[in-house]
Amino acid sequence: MNIKCVIQYDGTRYKGWQRQKNTKETIQGTVEEALKKITGNAIETIGAGRTDAGVHAKGQTFNMRMTWDGPLSSLQDQMNTLLPADMCIISMEKAEDRFHSRFSAKGKIYAYRLRTGSLRNVFERHYVWQMARPLNIEKMKKAAACLVGRHDFASFCAHKMKKSTVRTIERIEITDNPEKLTLVFEGNGFLQGEVRIITGTLVEVGEGLKKPEDMESILKAKDRKQAGFTAPARGLTLEKVIYEN
Amino acid sequence: MNIKCVIQYDGTRYKGWQRQKNTKETIQGTVEEALKKITGNAIETIGAGRTDAGVHAKGQTFNMRMTWDGPLSSLQDQMNTLLPADMCIISMEKAEDRFHSRFSAKGKIYAYRLRTGSLRNVFERHYVWQMARPLNIEKMKKAAACLVGRHDFASFCAHKMKKSTVRTIERIEITDNPEKLTLVFEGNGFLQGEVRIITGTLVEVGEGLKKPEDMESILKAKDRKQAGFTAPARGLTLEKVIYEN
Repeated sequence: MNIKCVIQYDGTRYKGWQRQKNTKETIQGTVEEALKKITGNAIETIGAGRTDAGVHAKGQTFNMRMTWDGPLSSLQDQMNTLLPADMCIISMEKAEDRFHSRFSAKGKIYAYRLRTGSLRNVFERHYVWQMARPLNIEKMKKAAACLVGRHDFASFCAHKMKKSTVRTIERIEITDNPEKLTLVFEGNGFLQGEVRIITGTLVEVGEGLKKPEDMESILKAKDRKQAGFTAPARGLTLEKVIYEN
Repeated sequence: MNIKCVIQYDGTRYKGWQRQKNTKETIQGTVEEALKKITGNAIETIGAGRTDAGVHAKGQTFNMRMTWDGPLSSLQDQMNTLLPADMCIISMEKAEDRFHSRFSAKGKIYAYRLRTGSLRNVFERHYVWQMARPLNIEKMKKAAACLVGRHDFASFCAHKMKKSTVRTIERIEITDNPEKLTLVFEGNGFLQGEVRIITGTLVEVGEGLKKPEDMESILKAKDRKQAGFTAPARGLTLEKVIYEN
Protein backbone atom coordinates (compact mmCIF):
# COMPACT_ATOMS: atom_id res chain seq x y z
CA MET A 1 0.00 0.00 0.00
CA ASN A 2 1.21 3.53 -0.81
CA ILE A 3 0.54 5.89 2.09
CA LYS A 4 0.61 9.69 1.95
CA CYS A 5 1.47 11.43 5.23
CA VAL A 6 1.53 15.08 6.22
CA ILE A 7 3.88 15.90 9.09
CA GLN A 8 4.36 19.00 11.23
CA TYR A 9 7.65 19.61 13.02
CA ASP A 10 9.61 22.10 15.03
CA GLY A 11 12.99 21.82 13.30
CA THR A 12 14.96 23.60 16.04
CA ARG A 13 16.94 20.62 17.31
CA TYR A 14 17.24 18.67 14.04
CA LYS A 15 19.77 18.60 11.23
CA GLY A 16 16.97 18.86 8.70
CA TRP A 17 14.62 16.38 7.05
CA GLN A 18 17.10 14.09 5.34
CA ARG A 19 18.26 10.92 7.07
CA GLN A 20 21.91 10.90 8.20
CA LYS A 21 24.03 8.39 10.04
CA ASN A 22 22.73 9.37 13.45
CA THR A 23 19.05 8.84 12.78
CA LYS A 24 17.82 10.71 15.83
CA GLU A 25 19.29 13.96 14.55
CA THR A 26 17.02 14.16 11.50
CA ILE A 27 13.27 14.21 10.99
CA GLN A 28 13.28 11.42 8.41
CA GLY A 29 15.51 9.22 10.58
CA THR A 30 13.25 9.73 13.60
CA VAL A 31 10.12 8.92 11.58
CA GLU A 32 11.67 5.78 10.06
CA GLU A 33 12.85 4.62 13.47
CA ALA A 34 9.27 4.86 14.78
CA LEU A 35 8.01 2.94 11.73
CA LYS A 36 10.53 0.22 12.40
CA LYS A 37 9.44 -0.09 16.02
CA ILE A 38 5.82 -0.48 14.96
CA THR A 39 6.20 -2.80 11.96
CA GLY A 40 9.51 -4.54 12.64
CA ASN A 41 10.58 -3.64 9.10
CA ALA A 42 12.85 -1.00 7.62
CA ILE A 43 10.46 1.27 5.74
CA GLU A 44 11.73 4.05 3.53
CA THR A 45 9.92 7.38 3.53
CA ILE A 46 10.06 9.69 0.51
CA GLY A 47 9.88 13.36 1.46
CA ALA A 48 8.47 16.06 -0.84
CA GLY A 49 11.66 17.97 -0.26
CA ARG A 50 14.48 18.37 2.18
CA THR A 51 14.20 21.05 4.77
CA ASP A 52 17.52 22.37 6.09
CA ALA A 53 18.76 22.15 9.66
CA GLY A 54 16.59 24.28 11.94
CA VAL A 55 13.82 24.83 9.39
CA HIS A 56 10.25 24.01 10.50
CA ALA A 57 7.29 22.47 8.71
CA LYS A 58 3.56 22.87 9.13
CA GLY A 59 2.84 20.60 6.19
CA GLN A 60 5.80 18.57 4.99
CA THR A 61 4.56 15.61 2.97
CA PHE A 62 6.05 12.16 2.53
CA ASN A 63 4.89 8.81 1.19
CA MET A 64 5.87 5.25 1.99
CA ARG A 65 5.09 1.80 0.63
CA MET A 66 4.28 -0.81 3.24
CA THR A 67 1.72 -3.41 4.20
CA TRP A 68 -0.72 -2.42 6.90
CA ASP A 69 -3.83 -4.42 7.71
CA GLY A 70 -5.56 -2.25 10.30
CA PRO A 71 -7.03 1.22 9.82
CA LEU A 72 -4.52 3.97 8.99
CA SER A 73 -5.75 6.01 11.96
CA SER A 74 -4.30 3.31 14.19
CA LEU A 75 -0.90 3.56 12.46
CA GLN A 76 -1.05 7.35 12.79
CA ASP A 77 -1.90 7.13 16.51
CA GLN A 78 0.93 4.67 17.15
CA MET A 79 3.35 6.89 15.25
CA ASN A 80 2.34 10.01 17.17
CA THR A 81 2.72 8.16 20.46
CA LEU A 82 6.27 7.14 19.55
CA LEU A 83 7.37 10.41 17.92
CA PRO A 84 8.85 13.16 20.13
CA ALA A 85 6.67 16.14 21.14
CA ASP A 86 8.22 18.35 18.45
CA MET A 87 6.79 16.23 15.61
CA CYS A 88 3.24 15.24 14.73
CA ILE A 89 1.78 13.37 11.78
CA ILE A 90 -1.32 15.41 11.08
CA SER A 91 -2.80 13.24 8.34
CA MET A 92 -2.31 9.82 6.79
CA GLU A 93 -4.22 8.43 3.82
CA LYS A 94 -4.06 5.73 1.19
CA ALA A 95 -2.63 7.16 -2.04
CA GLU A 96 -2.72 5.95 -5.62
CA ASP A 97 0.10 3.62 -6.36
CA ARG A 98 1.84 6.07 -8.68
CA PHE A 99 1.78 8.90 -6.09
CA HIS A 100 5.28 10.17 -5.28
CA SER A 101 5.52 12.97 -2.73
CA ARG A 102 8.28 14.75 -4.66
CA PHE A 103 7.50 14.06 -8.32
CA SER A 104 3.74 14.48 -7.91
CA ALA A 105 4.08 17.84 -6.12
CA LYS A 106 2.76 20.83 -8.12
CA GLY A 107 4.28 23.39 -5.82
CA LYS A 108 5.31 24.39 -2.35
CA ILE A 109 4.46 27.23 -0.03
CA TYR A 110 7.08 28.54 2.41
CA ALA A 111 6.70 31.33 4.93
CA TYR A 112 9.55 33.36 6.38
CA ARG A 113 8.72 35.27 9.55
CA LEU A 114 10.81 38.06 10.97
CA ARG A 115 10.40 40.55 13.73
CA THR A 116 11.38 44.14 13.05
CA GLY A 117 10.36 45.55 16.44
CA SER A 118 13.18 46.46 18.77
CA LEU A 119 12.10 44.02 21.50
CA ARG A 120 12.17 40.27 21.17
CA ASN A 121 9.01 38.23 21.65
CA VAL A 122 10.04 35.36 23.91
CA PHE A 123 7.19 33.08 22.82
CA GLU A 124 8.09 33.25 19.13
CA ARG A 125 11.84 33.04 19.56
CA HIS A 126 12.23 29.63 17.90
CA TYR A 127 9.99 30.39 14.91
CA VAL A 128 10.77 33.97 14.00
CA TRP A 129 14.01 35.72 13.14
CA GLN A 130 14.15 38.62 15.56
CA MET A 131 16.26 41.05 13.57
CA ALA A 132 14.94 44.05 15.51
CA ARG A 133 15.52 46.70 12.85
CA PRO A 134 12.90 48.61 10.83
CA LEU A 135 12.63 47.81 7.10
CA ASN A 136 11.34 49.72 4.10
CA ILE A 137 8.53 47.38 3.08
CA GLU A 138 7.60 49.19 -0.14
CA LYS A 139 11.11 48.74 -1.51
CA MET A 140 11.09 45.08 -0.48
CA LYS A 141 7.80 44.56 -2.33
CA LYS A 142 9.25 46.15 -5.47
CA ALA A 143 12.33 43.95 -5.31
CA ALA A 144 10.21 40.85 -4.67
CA ALA A 145 8.11 41.59 -7.76
CA CYS A 146 11.29 41.41 -9.89
CA LEU A 147 11.91 37.85 -8.69
CA VAL A 148 8.41 36.50 -9.35
CA GLY A 149 8.14 34.45 -12.55
CA ARG A 150 10.36 31.98 -14.36
CA HIS A 151 14.04 32.77 -13.84
CA ASP A 152 17.41 31.15 -13.46
CA PHE A 153 17.88 31.42 -9.69
CA ALA A 154 21.53 30.30 -9.66
CA SER A 155 22.48 33.48 -7.73
CA PHE A 156 20.07 32.43 -5.00
CA CYS A 157 21.26 28.84 -4.67
CA ALA A 158 23.44 27.76 -1.72
CA HIS A 159 25.52 25.40 -3.87
CA LYS A 160 26.72 25.31 -7.45
CA MET A 161 24.54 22.91 -9.39
CA LYS A 162 25.14 20.98 -12.57
CA LYS A 163 21.41 20.60 -13.15
CA SER A 164 19.17 23.46 -14.21
CA THR A 165 18.59 26.21 -11.69
CA VAL A 166 15.60 27.57 -13.59
CA ARG A 167 12.49 27.68 -11.42
CA THR A 168 9.18 29.53 -11.31
CA ILE A 169 8.08 31.59 -8.31
CA GLU A 170 4.32 32.09 -8.52
CA ARG A 171 4.15 34.73 -5.81
CA ILE A 172 6.04 36.44 -3.03
CA GLU A 173 3.57 38.04 -0.65
CA ILE A 174 4.83 40.37 2.06
CA THR A 175 2.46 40.97 4.96
CA ASP A 176 3.37 43.83 7.22
CA ASN A 177 2.02 43.53 10.74
CA PRO A 178 3.20 45.93 13.43
CA GLU A 179 6.71 44.83 14.42
CA LYS A 180 6.42 41.66 12.34
CA LEU A 181 6.84 40.72 8.71
CA THR A 182 5.74 37.54 6.94
CA LEU A 183 7.08 36.67 3.49
CA VAL A 184 5.10 33.94 1.74
CA PHE A 185 6.73 32.18 -1.22
CA GLU A 186 4.87 29.92 -3.63
CA GLY A 187 6.66 28.15 -6.44
CA ASN A 188 6.99 24.93 -8.38
CA GLY A 189 10.19 24.04 -6.59
CA PHE A 190 12.95 25.83 -4.72
CA LEU A 191 16.73 25.42 -4.86
CA GLN A 192 18.72 24.71 -1.73
CA GLY A 193 18.75 27.78 0.48
CA GLU A 194 16.77 29.78 -2.10
CA VAL A 195 14.01 31.08 0.17
CA ARG A 196 16.47 32.11 2.88
CA ILE A 197 18.83 33.78 0.38
CA ILE A 198 15.96 35.66 -1.28
CA THR A 199 14.77 36.71 2.17
CA GLY A 200 18.26 37.91 3.13
CA THR A 201 18.50 39.83 -0.14
CA LEU A 202 15.08 41.44 0.37
CA VAL A 203 16.08 42.40 3.91
CA GLU A 204 19.17 44.12 2.49
CA VAL A 205 16.84 46.03 0.15
CA GLY A 206 14.64 46.92 3.13
CA GLU A 207 17.68 48.27 4.94
CA GLY A 208 18.84 50.29 1.93
CA LEU A 209 21.97 48.20 1.27
CA LYS A 210 20.58 47.05 -2.07
CA LYS A 211 18.04 48.58 -4.47
CA PRO A 212 14.97 46.95 -6.01
CA GLU A 213 16.55 47.62 -9.42
CA ASP A 214 19.55 45.47 -8.44
CA MET A 215 17.46 42.29 -8.61
CA GLU A 216 17.70 42.07 -12.39
CA SER A 217 21.49 42.16 -12.44
CA ILE A 218 21.72 39.74 -9.52
CA LEU A 219 19.57 37.23 -11.44
CA LYS A 220 21.65 37.75 -14.59
CA ALA A 221 24.96 37.28 -12.78
CA LYS A 222 24.14 33.65 -11.84
CA ASP A 223 26.60 34.18 -9.02
CA ARG A 224 25.73 33.47 -5.38
CA LYS A 225 28.03 36.29 -4.24
CA GLN A 226 25.85 38.91 -5.93
CA ALA A 227 22.81 38.09 -3.81
CA GLY A 228 22.37 38.94 -0.13
CA PHE A 229 23.09 36.89 2.98
CA THR A 230 21.25 33.76 4.04
CA ALA A 231 18.52 34.58 6.57
CA PRO A 232 18.60 32.34 9.69
CA ALA A 233 16.85 28.96 9.47
CA ARG A 234 14.58 29.49 12.48
CA GLY A 235 12.37 32.00 10.61
CA LEU A 236 11.51 29.56 7.82
CA THR A 237 8.56 27.16 7.72
CA LEU A 238 7.46 24.83 4.92
CA GLU A 239 3.76 25.62 5.10
CA LYS A 240 2.33 23.28 2.49
CA VAL A 241 3.13 20.98 -0.41
CA ILE A 242 0.59 21.39 -3.20
CA TYR A 243 -0.81 18.42 -5.16
CA GLU A 244 -3.55 18.26 -7.76
CA ASN A 245 -7.05 17.86 -6.25
CA MET B 1 14.14 56.42 41.89
CA ASN B 2 11.20 54.01 41.79
CA ILE B 3 11.08 52.16 38.47
CA LYS B 4 8.12 50.20 37.12
CA CYS B 5 9.01 47.36 34.73
CA VAL B 6 6.87 45.04 32.65
CA ILE B 7 8.48 41.71 31.84
CA GLN B 8 7.55 38.89 29.47
CA TYR B 9 8.82 35.37 30.05
CA ASP B 10 8.56 31.80 28.92
CA GLY B 11 8.35 30.05 32.30
CA THR B 12 9.07 26.56 30.96
CA ARG B 13 12.50 26.09 32.50
CA TYR B 14 12.02 28.15 35.68
CA LYS B 15 10.82 27.37 39.18
CA GLY B 16 8.52 30.37 39.05
CA TRP B 17 8.92 34.08 39.69
CA GLN B 18 10.07 34.05 43.32
CA ARG B 19 13.77 34.10 44.12
CA GLN B 20 15.19 30.89 45.62
CA LYS B 21 18.66 29.83 46.69
CA ASN B 22 19.76 28.96 43.18
CA THR B 23 19.05 32.32 41.56
CA LYS B 24 19.29 31.08 37.99
CA GLU B 25 16.31 28.81 38.46
CA THR B 26 13.84 31.64 39.06
CA ILE B 27 12.75 34.66 37.06
CA GLN B 28 13.28 37.12 39.92
CA GLY B 29 16.72 35.69 40.70
CA THR B 30 17.77 35.96 37.05
CA VAL B 31 16.53 39.56 36.81
CA GLU B 32 18.26 40.59 40.03
CA GLU B 33 21.49 38.95 38.91
CA ALA B 34 21.43 41.04 35.72
CA LEU B 35 20.75 44.18 37.77
CA LYS B 36 23.72 43.40 39.96
CA LYS B 37 25.99 42.95 36.95
CA ILE B 38 24.93 46.34 35.58
CA THR B 39 24.91 48.41 38.77
CA GLY B 40 27.28 46.54 41.04
CA ASN B 41 24.61 46.66 43.74
CA ALA B 42 22.12 44.15 45.11
CA ILE B 43 18.76 45.54 44.00
CA GLU B 44 15.52 44.03 45.17
CA THR B 45 12.66 43.69 42.73
CA ILE B 46 9.06 43.59 43.94
CA GLY B 47 6.81 41.46 41.73
CA ALA B 48 3.07 42.05 41.35
CA GLY B 49 2.61 38.41 42.17
CA ARG B 50 4.36 35.10 42.12
CA THR B 51 3.88 32.90 39.12
CA ASP B 52 4.33 29.18 39.77
CA ALA B 53 6.95 26.93 38.20
CA GLY B 54 6.33 26.58 34.48
CA VAL B 55 3.79 29.42 34.27
CA HIS B 56 4.42 32.12 31.63
CA ALA B 57 3.92 35.87 31.62
CA LYS B 58 3.15 38.33 28.85
CA GLY B 59 2.91 41.21 31.29
CA GLN B 60 4.28 40.47 34.75
CA THR B 61 5.04 43.75 36.52
CA PHE B 62 7.65 44.56 39.11
CA ASN B 63 9.15 47.69 40.63
CA MET B 64 12.54 48.46 42.12
CA ARG B 65 14.14 51.37 43.93
CA MET B 66 17.60 52.31 42.71
CA THR B 67 19.68 55.19 41.50
CA TRP B 68 20.14 55.49 37.75
CA ASP B 69 21.57 58.55 36.07
CA GLY B 70 21.18 57.73 32.39
CA PRO B 71 17.98 57.26 30.40
CA LEU B 72 15.87 54.27 31.44
CA SER B 73 15.93 52.98 27.86
CA SER B 74 19.64 52.38 28.32
CA LEU B 75 19.03 50.36 31.50
CA GLN B 76 16.32 48.38 29.68
CA ASP B 77 18.64 47.68 26.72
CA GLN B 78 21.44 46.54 29.02
CA MET B 79 19.04 44.31 30.92
CA ASN B 80 17.68 42.72 27.75
CA THR B 81 21.20 42.08 26.50
CA LEU B 82 22.09 40.26 29.73
CA LEU B 83 18.80 38.38 30.21
CA PRO B 84 18.37 34.97 28.53
CA ALA B 85 16.31 34.69 25.32
CA ASP B 86 13.26 33.45 27.23
CA MET B 87 12.83 36.73 29.10
CA CYS B 88 12.36 40.29 27.90
CA ILE B 89 11.67 43.53 29.72
CA ILE B 90 9.07 45.12 27.47
CA SER B 91 8.75 48.43 29.27
CA MET B 92 10.47 50.44 31.96
CA GLU B 93 9.30 53.78 33.34
CA LYS B 94 9.75 56.08 36.30
CA ALA B 95 6.94 55.51 38.81
CA GLU B 96 5.62 57.63 41.65
CA ASP B 97 7.48 57.00 44.84
CA ARG B 98 4.49 55.32 46.49
CA PHE B 99 3.96 52.89 43.58
CA HIS B 100 4.17 49.26 44.71
CA SER B 101 3.68 46.63 42.03
CA ARG B 102 1.66 44.38 44.34
CA PHE B 103 -0.24 46.77 46.59
CA SER B 104 -1.02 49.25 43.81
CA ALA B 105 -2.41 46.56 41.50
CA LYS B 106 -6.16 46.81 40.85
CA GLY B 107 -6.38 43.41 39.24
CA LYS B 108 -4.80 40.74 37.11
CA ILE B 109 -5.69 39.01 33.89
CA TYR B 110 -4.66 35.39 33.35
CA ALA B 111 -5.28 33.24 30.29
CA TYR B 112 -5.36 29.46 30.29
CA ARG B 113 -5.02 27.85 26.86
CA LEU B 114 -5.85 24.28 26.11
CA ARG B 115 -6.11 22.20 23.00
CA THR B 116 -9.07 19.88 22.66
CA GLY B 117 -8.24 18.58 19.17
CA SER B 118 -6.94 15.03 18.99
CA LEU B 119 -3.61 16.04 17.42
CA ARG B 120 -0.94 18.05 19.18
CA ASN B 121 0.30 21.32 17.69
CA VAL B 122 4.08 21.14 17.94
CA PHE B 123 4.60 24.91 17.82
CA GLU B 124 2.35 25.60 20.80
CA ARG B 125 3.48 22.68 22.92
CA HIS B 126 5.13 24.78 25.63
CA TYR B 127 2.28 27.28 25.96
CA VAL B 128 -0.87 25.22 25.64
CA TRP B 129 -2.10 22.20 27.54
CA GLN B 130 -2.79 19.64 24.83
CA MET B 131 -5.45 17.56 26.54
CA ALA B 132 -6.79 16.25 23.23
CA ARG B 133 -10.34 15.47 24.33
CA PRO B 134 -13.55 17.27 23.32
CA LEU B 135 -15.30 19.37 25.97
CA ASN B 136 -18.86 20.54 26.47
CA ILE B 137 -18.27 24.29 26.34
CA GLU B 138 -21.83 25.33 27.22
CA LYS B 139 -21.65 23.44 30.50
CA MET B 140 -18.25 24.93 31.24
CA LYS B 141 -19.63 28.44 30.66
CA LYS B 142 -22.52 27.75 33.05
CA ALA B 143 -20.13 26.47 35.72
CA ALA B 144 -17.78 29.45 35.20
CA ALA B 145 -20.69 31.87 35.70
CA CYS B 146 -21.24 30.40 39.18
CA LEU B 147 -17.67 31.29 40.15
CA VAL B 148 -17.73 34.89 38.97
CA GLY B 149 -18.21 37.42 41.78
CA ARG B 150 -17.05 37.71 45.36
CA HIS B 151 -16.61 34.31 46.99
CA ASP B 152 -14.50 32.43 49.46
CA PHE B 153 -12.27 30.45 47.09
CA ALA B 154 -10.71 28.23 49.80
CA SER B 155 -11.73 25.12 47.79
CA PHE B 156 -9.69 26.42 44.88
CA CYS B 157 -6.54 27.23 46.82
CA ALA B 158 -3.46 24.97 46.60
CA HIS B 159 -2.60 25.45 50.29
CA LYS B 160 -4.54 26.01 53.48
CA MET B 161 -4.36 29.67 54.40
CA LYS B 162 -4.74 31.46 57.70
CA LYS B 163 -5.53 34.73 55.93
CA SER B 164 -8.80 35.36 54.12
CA THR B 165 -9.42 33.40 50.94
CA VAL B 166 -12.21 35.72 49.83
CA ARG B 167 -11.54 37.17 46.39
CA THR B 168 -13.51 38.68 43.55
CA ILE B 169 -13.42 37.29 40.02
CA GLU B 170 -14.66 39.97 37.62
CA ARG B 171 -15.02 37.65 34.65
CA ILE B 172 -14.22 34.22 33.26
CA GLU B 173 -14.45 34.35 29.48
CA ILE B 174 -14.29 31.12 27.51
CA THR B 175 -13.40 31.47 23.84
CA ASP B 176 -14.02 28.40 21.74
CA ASN B 177 -11.86 28.20 18.65
CA PRO B 178 -11.77 25.01 16.61
CA GLU B 179 -9.65 22.52 18.56
CA LYS B 180 -8.57 25.20 21.03
CA LEU B 181 -10.04 26.80 24.11
CA THR B 182 -8.94 29.96 25.89
CA LEU B 183 -10.16 30.77 29.39
CA VAL B 184 -9.56 34.37 30.44
CA PHE B 185 -9.74 35.20 34.14
CA GLU B 186 -9.87 38.73 35.52
CA GLY B 187 -9.92 39.39 39.24
CA ASN B 188 -8.61 41.57 42.03
CA GLY B 189 -6.21 38.87 43.15
CA PHE B 190 -5.87 35.13 42.89
CA LEU B 191 -4.91 32.52 45.47
CA GLN B 192 -2.05 30.13 44.88
CA GLY B 193 -3.01 27.65 42.20
CA GLU B 194 -6.51 29.16 41.91
CA VAL B 195 -6.62 29.69 38.15
CA ARG B 196 -5.26 26.21 37.42
CA ILE B 197 -7.62 24.54 39.92
CA ILE B 198 -10.64 26.42 38.53
CA THR B 199 -9.51 25.41 35.03
CA GLY B 200 -9.16 21.76 36.07
CA THR B 201 -12.61 21.88 37.69
CA LEU B 202 -14.17 23.45 34.58
CA VAL B 203 -12.51 20.79 32.42
CA GLU B 204 -14.09 18.12 34.61
CA VAL B 205 -17.45 19.82 34.01
CA GLY B 206 -16.72 19.85 30.27
CA GLU B 207 -16.00 16.13 30.40
CA GLY B 208 -19.19 15.38 32.35
CA LEU B 209 -17.40 14.34 35.56
CA LYS B 210 -18.88 17.31 37.42
CA LYS B 211 -22.03 19.40 36.85
CA PRO B 212 -22.32 23.19 36.64
CA GLU B 213 -24.65 22.98 39.66
CA ASP B 214 -21.84 21.43 41.71
CA MET B 215 -19.92 24.73 41.79
CA GLU B 216 -22.07 26.15 44.57
CA SER B 217 -21.45 23.23 46.94
CA ILE B 218 -17.73 23.17 46.04
CA LEU B 219 -17.45 26.84 47.02
CA LYS B 220 -19.39 26.24 50.23
CA ALA B 221 -17.28 23.25 51.25
CA LYS B 222 -14.10 25.37 51.54
CA ASP B 223 -12.28 22.11 50.95
CA ARG B 224 -9.64 21.71 48.22
CA LYS B 225 -10.63 18.06 47.76
CA GLN B 226 -14.09 19.04 46.51
CA ALA B 227 -12.72 20.94 43.51
CA GLY B 228 -11.17 19.39 40.43
CA PHE B 229 -7.56 18.66 39.57
CA THR B 230 -4.86 21.28 38.96
CA ALA B 231 -4.44 21.93 35.24
CA PRO B 232 -0.79 21.80 34.05
CA ALA B 233 1.30 24.94 34.45
CA ARG B 234 2.32 25.23 30.79
CA GLY B 235 -1.17 26.33 29.70
CA LEU B 236 -1.21 29.35 32.03
CA THR B 237 -0.03 32.87 31.21
CA LEU B 238 -0.20 36.01 33.35
CA GLU B 239 -1.41 38.35 30.61
CA LYS B 240 -1.52 41.67 32.44
CA VAL B 241 -1.42 43.39 35.79
CA ILE B 242 -3.96 46.22 35.94
CA TYR B 243 -3.19 49.58 37.58
CA GLU B 244 -5.20 52.78 37.69
CA ASN B 245 -4.66 55.05 34.66
